[in-house]
Amino acid sequence: MSLLIRSSYVSQFHTRNSKPSSFSDQTPSKSPFFSSFNHNPLINLVYKRNPRMQSLSFPSSMTVKSSLIDPDGGELVELVVPDSEIELKKKEAESMPKVKLTKIDLEWVHVISEGWASPLKGFMREDEYLQSLHFNSLRLKDGSLVNMSLPIVLAIDDQTKEQIGVSKNVALVSPQGDIVGSLRSVEIYKHNKEERIARTWGTTSPGLPYVEEHITPSGNWLIGGDLEVFQPVKYNDGLDHYRLSPKQLRKEFDNRKADAVFAFQLRNPVHNGHALLMNDTRKRLLEMGYKNPILLLHPLGGFTKADDVPLDVRMEQHSKVLEDGVLDPETTIVSIFPSPMHYAGPTEVQWHAKARINAGANFYIVGRDPAGMGHPTEKRDLYDPDHGKKVLSMAPGLEKLNILPFRVAAYDTVEKKMAFFDPTRAKEFLFISGTKMRTYARTGESPPDGFMCPSGWNVLVKYYESLQESDDSSKQQQAVVSA
Amino acid sequence: MSLLIRSSYVSQFHTRNSKPSSFSDQTPSKSPFFSSFNHNPLINLVYKRNPRMQSLSFPSSMTVKSSLIDPDGGELVELVVPDSEIELKKKEAESMPKVKLTKIDLEWVHVISEGWASPLKGFMREDEYLQSLHFNSLRLKDGSLVNMSLPIVLAIDDQTKEQIGVSKNVALVSPQGDIVGSLRSVEIYKHNKEERIARTWGTTSPGLPYVEEHITPSGNWLIGGDLEVFQPVKYNDGLDHYRLSPKQLRKEFDNRKADAVFAFQLRNPVHNGHALLMNDTRKRLLEMGYKNPILLLHPLGGFTKADDVPLDVRMEQHSKVLEDGVLDPETTIVSIFPSPMHYAGPTEVQWHAKARINAGANFYIVGRDPAGMGHPTEKRDLYDPDHGKKVLSMAPGLEKLNILPFRVAAYDTVEKKMAFFDPTRAKEFLFISGTKMRTYARTGESPPDGFMCPSGWNVLVKYYESLQESDDSSKQQQAVVSA
Repeated sequence: MSLLIRSSYVSQFHTRNSKPSSFSDQTPSKSPFFSSFNHNPLINLVYKRNPRMQSLSFPSSMTVKSSLIDPDGGELVELVVPDSEIELKKKEAESMPKVKLTKIDLEWVHVISEGWASPLKGFMREDEYLQSLHFNSLRLKDGSLVNMSLPIVLAIDDQTKEQIGVSKNVALVSPQGDIVGSLRSVEIYKHNKEERIARTWGTTSPGLPYVEEHITPSGNWLIGGDLEVFQPVKYNDGLDHYRLSPKQLRKEFDNRKADAVFAFQLRNPVHNGHALLMNDTRKRLLEMGYKNPILLLHPLGGFTKADDVPLDVRMEQHSKVLEDGVLDPETTIVSIFPSPMHYAGPTEVQWHAKARINAGANFYIVGRDPAGMGHPTEKRDLYDPDHGKKVLSMAPGLEKLNILPFRVAAYDTVEKKMAFFDPTRAKEFLFISGTKMRTYARTGESPPDGFMCPSGWNVLVKYYESLQESDDSSKQQQAVVSA
Repeated sequence: MSLLIRSSYVSQFHTRNSKPSSFSDQTPSKSPFFSSFNHNPLINLVYKRNPRMQSLSFPSSMTVKSSLIDPDGGELVELVVPDSEIELKKKEAESMPKVKLTKIDLEWVHVISEGWASPLKGFMREDEYLQSLHFNSLRLKDGSLVNMSLPIVLAIDDQTKEQIGVSKNVALVSPQGDIVGSLRSVEIYKHNKEERIARTWGTTSPGLPYVEEHITPSGNWLIGGDLEVFQPVKYNDGLDHYRLSPKQLRKEFDNRKADAVFAFQLRNPVHNGHALLMNDTRKRLLEMGYKNPILLLHPLGGFTKADDVPLDVRMEQHSKVLEDGVLDPETTIVSIFPSPMHYAGPTEVQWHAKARINAGANFYIVGRDPAGMGHPTEKRDLYDPDHGKKVLSMAPGLEKLNILPFRVAAYDTVEKKMAFFDPTRAKEFLFISGTKMRTYARTGESPPDGFMCPSGWNVLVKYYESLQESDDSSKQQQAVVSA
């Protein structure tokens, strides 16, 4: 059996399953809200195949109940200023001291403002930072704990700190120079980078991608406070329609009459091993009595390291996988998770799971070495590949989430397809890591038959060819300059 | 006001205070148990002054109720094999694979066997290790959390692992070669030293005393299991009578009719600033309505770094402080806390507090930079001096303990005494750190009047003179050899 479900939760399934769905069969509205995610082509794909589902949207005025799992803290945090207040708030912000955001800071503004980090209402103040760093959780006023494994913090330098002085509120300025929101009742405290890195990654080795990109160059102070944004964060990269907020996802799950939602976090192209596992999960859930389990295929959309496949290429690859029917579009929602990637293994996988609670998923799939990478300076995995799923199953605040650890899938050279690894005939299996897959695509070598659907594979080949071309052309240009 | 008490606990005081004491006024017994700690001279000091108290011991058959605070997990762990089974168990252990303990490992055997780490029943298996490392707490079967901030683990090398093979139980061998106990149903797992150090200390900088002494030279595997010891751990250093177990301390608190116990952890000589604080705490507790608050002056007795004052000198110094009446012997118990020192700041202070819950203390005093030290390679404190008390007040599993953070005491050069620091006349205060105190004593320079009672100071001066002499004599010997 490929799925091990924590026994303590099995009994809950039936309770939840027997609970009447909060789904309402009202006629669709033309509300601006609904149209904003109606354009997700993978959702449209479903509607095309099953026109009846087109009628299952909610009028924007209706309160959507979270039928499957409550957001952390009980209520989804949403920090976009209401239309009626925007002008006033913007004007107010113009007179505040300014804090310039990096691209990654803005990704966090996106994450916080939509409630992925509920009940967090802004960048962390010191008491939240310390709890996150030491306990991977936050205590709420009622004494309960919610998970919060990554410090979600905003760094400022000495000069900015001085400019802020004793001001209570600051304006947040995007990398493009726009005021995107404000941080209120701010608290400034020391940014001990060494301690933050050691406690988050379990190493201070040079070469950690997020650290080098974002922490090392950052200031020596952290500023926390209550966040307000003036409008939803958009990227204008042709992929915004994929970026459903937790609220939108929850509506969509109800829309689809989901009685279980299982989330799959990924930052790589989908191969048939992933597909096997997702399809197997669905099968198991059906066997357990669920009538309509929905897969949330949830690629990470924020910062990734330089040698990962870029988001737009991955999204194209994912759409091919659904078009080819490797995953069933009727029971799958593809959406982008806006968080940046830390590559912090067992610490980060908790964040990945916690954010999906807030998005309404009540099952979370976890595999080998989640959010892991090679050690930057030693020839080994940075994390024990089993620690991720172990830590996830123990993590405070994640008790309400059903963790689905799975056996590793590999290429079965006898059956010529991806299959769950069978240790009794280990030699007949071929492990194809993300790195190896990228190497195949980069060198133009074909992976074994049955590793990935051909149209999906083609997307990757084209991407690496384009890299090669731009590399060649830049070499040519250099040659011209040299000549 | 020097004490800030978490408001959520203030209401509990009165509840606890009004609870009838479980103290019983029976006649003393000559049980071997009582006599073992009757020899603590600082306890005897009380009895000498107040002969009535001599009659307040319990017969050994009586169950002592924990009147003030329950041990973590509800029951105090005690892992000493009953007399009737010792021979059988010892014989059994002789045939088991052997694991050689270092001096520090044996200190941990001591700690675990007496229940300071309750409900931990042995060296950690991987699931406990991971929870400790990531969450500073352990989840019990009933879903509740107890604090456990330091991984209490036993490292073995490749060769020992091989010798153990598939054996379920191993014998534990002291540095002197004696089998002191066993570890049962063992589990062996990887010892990722880098990750352990980074997550425990928040740095991987070279120069951390516990790391250099104990972790770096240790093996690449950890072995967890259920501990049994054949007899209470003794050191035969003339100080064993000071080493009261949690059970003995709990009995003594009841014996003294304590209605509050406030613990003070220290690894330095007691100066008048410490005394001010302890006496002030007592005053506050009396003002709060407690009738008989007892101070547990609880110096750490395990591994300390080379330049700390050794335990025997500290114990002599402490006894002078009580003899001089700087602290009141009638309301003070001096005992040794057998744990080794990590110098891991906010992470370690939780362990210090948690262990005192198990010893029956319901108040814990915490000051500036607890368990801190200078950064080994940078010119700064390793930890933010305020983080210890903040983290302690947030720590999961410590909710039932009353945390007493205090303002820093310093030498008031106007009043010529130790006093709580007054920031409005900062220039009139002199800060005398542990390092500075040791420098005074080492150079023979007198500290300002009123810094420490003269007889206590004299103990330190003599100690540093003896160091000087042995240093001179070793230089002389070297000179002779050279000549």
